[in-house]
Amino acid sequence: MSIRNLDYLFKPKSIAVVGASTRPGSVGAVLARNLLRGGFDGPVMPVNPKHAVIESVRAYADVDDLPETPDLAVIATPPRTVPGIVEALARRGTRAAIVITAGFGESASDAGRGQRERMLQAARPHLLRVVGPNCLGVLVPGLGVNASFAHLQPRPGSIAFVTQSGAIATAVLGWAHARGIGFSHVVSLGDMADVDFGDMLDYLASDPRTRAILLYMEAVTHTRKFMSAARAAARSKPVIVVKAGRRPEGARAAASHTGALAGADGVFDAAFRRAGMLRVLSLRELFDAVEIVANLAAPEGDRLAILTNGGGMGVLAVDALVEAGGRLAELAPETLAALDRALPPTWPRANPVDIIGDAPPSRYREALEALRADPNVDAILVVNCPTAVASSVEAASAVCEVIGRTPGPTVLASWTGDAREASRLFAEHRVAAYETPEEAVRGFMYLVDYRRNQRLLTQTPPSIPEAFTPRTDGARKAIAAALAAGRQWLAPQEVDEVLAAYAIPAVETRLAGTPDEAARAAAGAQARWRSRSAPPRSRTSRTSAA
Amino acid sequence: MSIRNLDYLFKPKSIAVVGASTRPGSVGAVLARNLLRGGFDGPVMPVNPKHAVIESVRAYADVDDLPETPDLAVIATPPRTVPGIVEALARRGTRAAIVITAGFGESASDAGRGQRERMLQAARPHLLRVVGPNCLGVLVPGLGVNASFAHLQPRPGSIAFVTQSGAIATAVLGWAHARGIGFSHVVSLGDMADVDFGDMLDYLASDPRTRAILLYMEAVTHTRKFMSAARAAARSKPVIVVKAGRRPEGARAAASHTGALAGADGVFDAAFRRAGMLRVLSLRELFDAVEIVANLAAPEGDRLAILTNGGGMGVLAVDALVEAGGRLAELAPETLAALDRALPPTWPRANPVDIIGDAPPSRYREALEALRADPNVDAILVVNCPTAVASSVEAASAVCEVIGRTPGPTVLASWTGDAREASRLFAEHRVAAYETPEEAVRGFMYLVDYRRNQRLLTQTPPSIPEAFTPRTDGARKAIAAALAAGRQWLAPQEVDEVLAAYAIPAVETRLAGTPDEAARAAAGAQARWRSRSAPPRSRTSRTSAA
Repeated sequence: MSIRNLDYLFKPKSIAVVGASTRPGSVGAVLARNLLRGGFDGPVMPVNPKHAVIESVRAYADVDDLPETPDLAVIATPPRTVPGIVEALARRGTRAAIVITAGFGESASDAGRGQRERMLQAARPHLLRVVGPNCLGVLVPGLGVNASFAHLQPRPGSIAFVTQSGAIATAVLGWAHARGIGFSHVVSLGDMADVDFGDMLDYLASDPRTRAILLYMEAVTHTRKFMSAARAAARSKPVIVVKAGRRPEGARAAASHTGALAGADGVFDAAFRRAGMLRVLSLRELFDAVEIVANLAAPEGDRLAILTNGGGMGVLAVDALVEAGGRLAELAPETLAALDRALPPTWPRANPVDIIGDAPPSRYREALEALRADPNVDAILVVNCPTAVASSVEAASAVCEVIGRTPGPTVLASWTGDAREASRLFAEHRVAAYETPEEAVRGFMYLVDYRRNQRLLTQTPPSIPEAFTPRTDGARKAIAAALAAGRQWLAPQEVDEVLAAYAIPAVETRLAGTPDEAARAAAGAQARWRSRSAPPRSRTSRTSAA
Repeated sequence: MSIRNLDYLFKPKSIAVVGASTRPGSVGAVLARNLLRGGFDGPVMPVNPKHAVIESVRAYADVDDLPETPDLAVIATPPRTVPGIVEALARRGTRAAIVITAGFGESASDAGRGQRERMLQAARPHLLRVVGPNCLGVLVPGLGVNASFAHLQPRPGSIAFVTQSGAIATAVLGWAHARGIGFSHVVSLGDMADVDFGDMLDYLASDPRTRAILLYMEAVTHTRKFMSAARAAARSKPVIVVKAGRRPEGARAAASHTGALAGADGVFDAAFRRAGMLRVLSLRELFDAVEIVANLAAPEGDRLAILTNGGGMGVLAVDALVEAGGRLAELAPETLAALDRALPPTWPRANPVDIIGDAPPSRYREALEALRADPNVDAILVVNCPTAVASSVEAASAVCEVIGRTPGPTVLASWTGDAREASRLFAEHRVAAYETPEEAVRGFMYLVDYRRNQRLLTQTPPSIPEAFTPRTDGARKAIAAALAAGRQWLAPQEVDEVLAAYAIPAVETRLAGTPDEAARAAAGAQARWRSRSAPPRSRTSRTSAA
């Protein structure tokens, strides 16, 4: 399908909400209220056969009764009614629907799966795109579209957030709201009967309002489409992904299964890297990434200067920086001279620049000015610990003043303690601010890694050595045979065949059914090994006796 | 020295503050105010030759002028005056001093080092114990002792926090204050001229008001004393340590040096494990650990039940749990039956227990009651994402109500979004509460690891095999020679000798000065290797030609 129909989803001119309700606290009531109060510049038309008015707006008995064809319909009615509603919408010409309703996902009953199939059959001939079912909805804050039952109205911003879990959506929205961070799009994909991650990446990659894309994934559908969309998107903007379910704990999963699944996560990891996406492992890391992409231009390189009023915090930041593969900036002689003039004589004359615990705002200002003038500095992390002798808020204010006055390298902040007032200042001045210095360093390194990935993406892989021709036919045959047998995994001997086809060295492995067989296999291997002048070749063989 | 004199530090009957000041914002003024307003049940006596009254309290011109001998003196005067003041105090019978003053640390000038030595010489004959110099001070909130220039007054509590960095102290105090977490002791050790980590561990291990000990370390003095004190302390209560400076970035450190230093951190790591301490790597991890030790009785084991209103949050928690070595509790049939009665039919009938996004407080209550009755559950993590259809605060209130009513396994909470009100409820009910589910799992696993360490500490190591006698003399000789030469590191050939003494296998390594020598060494090795029936023995040899 073309991504063009997704414009009806993200830029609708009119919206119907089917299953709008007056019952306080119900999903249908929250949906109607969110849509009507979101500031959308077009008609929102409630549909409910039992009520003539919902939220002071005229309601319609059914889809056919609507005075105009809605571009987008939001559906929150019981599962058995959904296929009929989608069919009526498609017939009238609606091209996008968001199905909030749960109960016909992949894990549902036979009846549920049948309803899901009938819904898709009704939609397909008319190219009506379906988001969901079983989702929180879709938000486009810049257009006042809040087609969701989220608990709050996010601000407009430049981050697109696409998630398979509605709960993660509300968690991230709640966190971001408190930090003053906004979104270009929030999309809860739910069960992904139709619209999936590949579609979203295709669409958002070329959306000019979206500067970064965040994904929360549990599974991938249409892997090839996903990979090509991810690669294209990551070329134009940072794509950050949380892939959950790294360690599926089926209650009594056998050890062999565990190994297989851990391997599967390794595949995701490699695929993300290959596509140039940044993978983060936890909600906190996602928060850290959002903080930086929401606020920053990309730093030019990986050389970080650290400015702190507490030595210990500097040490923690350096540990985190070096471990993540970043570098401490080496300060230019002119910078050291300028700092000598600005700081007390006991300052350590090196990066981290410890401006000492009694530092007043003026010392922050002068030290930051000196560091911003240094050509060896790609970004600056400013750290503050609370003290009784100087105000943390005034220090934040001095930092913001310097940033506002002159251009220069990216500045990040770590204000520890009760830093609500400072946080507000930093949010206003678009400075990425963190509670701990290590988290600030992590945020910085996301952007450094993004730039490194960008370079890797534009490199072609080294060519194959001339003297070597892989036997790709053999590898293809093994994989095709496994797929034909309906298997998800290669058997051990098939793995051997694939590795051998590319002459990849592998440890010699043998299978023995009894201790005696094991002893014989060992003796045989030792004898063969003695008779050779080089270590056993990489070819793997296996004697099966089990 | 005995730890008994430390009672004068932690349980003084009277306190002098030498260098108390009236200048607003000065360290001397903050010290006087903190001491006088901390609620200490004894006289606080300011000493300053220039002022007769400080903070409405009579001040004395010098130490000899004091109307009684103070148990404890806090000193914040210029470095050159400190040795004389310490001597006067020692002569009068004071047994503990906290030297706030900076400028005579190890990194200071020759004059500074001389003053430090003279200070110690004045203190030693009288067994006067010195904390500092260059520190934030000491707080014992339960006794109203605030002998520090901290920016706030912590609450009394059961955690002792000992730190080499004053900045880390204020950062942790600020964070803890906002969470309602209190401390039994806060000790800023500064340059550790006298009192060090070993002393503090010895003292705090047997302090009945201290339930857990946190350390922020950059260096260890008196290693043997430290190890034996750490081992004893960790047997009686959790000891959690941040050891910073894992990756010292000497500006142009050679690659070989980096390797050596990484190894040094490995030594710390092994020592901490051996002592039964828990090592955490960042300020956030320290916060997570504080949250759990401040609130909890230890869980009985590593089987965690997860109760969540959002499936995605459950998945993130499971990933974190399994990766950290914990286990998902397997719910008993009676528990599943009770949950069937309490939950909608679509609940997944497994742990994590997903009570679905529309869960009202009553569903939290009933599901939590069922899980607390399950004998297979060691602890329960309750997760909440904000929704528009149910109140997060009411859910928190329901959880606290269940906990207050019946005893049962430990409960942790993860409330995401703007959870200030819920946090307050949890703090009141002593429930460890986190912003993300992964951080809650990390907190849980600290206590699980603590219990595991406790078991390891009581085990004796397996005995040495009878047929093997290590040549300890050889190893001792190599190490003694290096120490005698004033070296911190073994040379490569000395490492070989130590490894060989214990018959530890090592890869054969040779050093060659030119490509030709390398080729000859390789040919020789290959020839020897061919002539053998087994792989090269573990003995390492090295031909030096460089």
